[in-house]
Amino acid sequence: MRLANVSVGGVARYGAITEDGFIDLGLFFGGRCQCLADILTEDLLAEARAAQKEAAASATPLDAIRYLPALPGKASRVIAIGWAYGEHQREVGREPSPFPSIFPKFQESFVGHGETLAAPHISDMYDFEGEVALVIGKGGRDIPAARGCEHIAGYTIVMDGSVRDWQQHSVPAGKNFEKSSAIGPWITTADEIERPGDMRLSTRLNGQLMQQADFREMVWDPGYLVHYLSTIFALRPGDIVSTGTPAGVGHKRRPQVFMKAGDVIEVGVEGLGTLRNPIERSAAA
Amino acid sequence: MRLANVSVGGVARYGAITEDGFIDLGLFFGGRCQCLADILTEDLLAEARAAQKEAAASATPLDAIRYLPALPGKASRVIAIGWAYGEHQREVGREPSPFPSIFPKFQESFVGHGETLAAPHISDMYDFEGEVALVIGKGGRDIPAARGCEHIAGYTIVMDGSVRDWQQHSVPAGKNFEKSSAIGPWITTADEIERPGDMRLSTRLNGQLMQQADFREMVWDPGYLVHYLSTIFALRPGDIVSTGTPAGVGHKRRPQVFMKAGDVIEVGVEGLGTLRNPIERSAAA
Repeated sequence: MRLANVSVGGVARYGAITEDGFIDLGLFFGGRCQCLADILTEDLLAEARAAQKEAAASATPLDAIRYLPALPGKASRVIAIGWAYGEHQREVGREPSPFPSIFPKFQESFVGHGETLAAPHISDMYDFEGEVALVIGKGGRDIPAARGCEHIAGYTIVMDGSVRDWQQHSVPAGKNFEKSSAIGPWITTADEIERPGDMRLSTRLNGQLMQQADFREMVWDPGYLVHYLSTIFALRPGDIVSTGTPAGVGHKRRPQVFMKAGDVIEVGVEGLGTLRNPIERSAAA
Repeated sequence: MRLANVSVGGVARYGAITEDGFIDLGLFFGGRCQCLADILTEDLLAEARAAQKEAAASATPLDAIRYLPALPGKASRVIAIGWAYGEHQREVGREPSPFPSIFPKFQESFVGHGETLAAPHISDMYDFEGEVALVIGKGGRDIPAARGCEHIAGYTIVMDGSVRDWQQHSVPAGKNFEKSSAIGPWITTADEIERPGDMRLSTRLNGQLMQQADFREMVWDPGYLVHYLSTIFALRPGDIVSTGTPAGVGHKRRPQVFMKAGDVIEVGVEGLGTLRNPIERSAAA
């Protein structure tokens, strides 16, 4: 199942993306659930799957929706992992570490699939990072690594927009420019991904391939990332773990490549779809 | 005026702390406002001040309330500044930088005044950092530094609990252990602080003075911090900027000093009150 936040006629709705169109799960669950984060349990996902079939006739055509960020709830946290692919560690000159490096991204940093990304007006070093993101289903604290994957309800795609000069001030500064990142198009539930390690990620800037890697090349086991983060705080349904980017980022290319107004950035992941966003320059105040 | 989130008989309320007791501003504003973040404008603060006087007779005695974290709203972000006092830069061996270093702290990292802090069970390096925090009143993007202070509605106190070994993995990891930090007791509106630079901060562990500095020793002008952050994203009413800690942190003392179960940590700031919290060890799962 593909779960999405969309805008239908300017009204935010949550539901499922199917071959027939968008199925409004908010109408089905009514007051029982408020957002995607509320339905990320096995029971409710099973109900949603049944509803999706029954409601096919009432689907909204996909050309009548806009995608909103695939953030499951208003309180969902986004925790990104830095330097999590070996080739990327080497291209940036980062020594492998025995522990992950994490940084939070505010919800305001994201746009949805198809929405316009804002290239910061104060920098010319706006870079792309294509990433596979885990969507937490079952929450918990101190989750053993061996059981971590049981807490992953699904996967989505993140374009982790990175303002390289500001990232030098501090990582969270360069990673949180408003509307500089994208997430979506939707959340693919974990049951649809038979072998997560096989997911191949491809980042294309204006159609040109910039990054390509299989998810198994990511240096951390996804279950370990769940374990690590849940040692710090209780994970909650809807939290997002963006698992870092492979090699090929723009600022390590020679010549360097950065994103600018008029560009189109695409991150495709086999099984998860393609997250595609045009870029405009953010207006100075 | 002193604005606070409190629990009265187990029910969360927001309002003002006065000599007469707690004045419930939620009752006064009714459906017009939902939380402290909604009243941080000059007009509504003026209304709240008037209401506070009129409602004195109906105040709840202070011994009947518990303090909740002084976070103005559920969506309020907390952005902390690292290495912002010269003496602290020297004690940790950090070169002065032309730009601030920032890191987000999740709301779940905080407890209120008087509540129990959770010393992480996986570390013996749980350290204190007393800080003055700015509370954003008027939001905005690309705010000029010279006008930054107009966006500060008030001040509060943060005890930025820091797990030093995990901070080595990445700063946000060591700074976001659940319930390892405190914020409060309340927000003091900016009109009550005639000379912010004069605010003297004192951190005491079990009554022993560990840190002491005047706010003017902080290396960034508060208006500049507002400018810097608003260049990255639009600040919103209720966002918190915790402005870094002065020298005297536990892990740079010889011998090192860390917090443990049974300790009491207090951060007092002249004009803002004293944030006092006992410490218990977090239970292993």
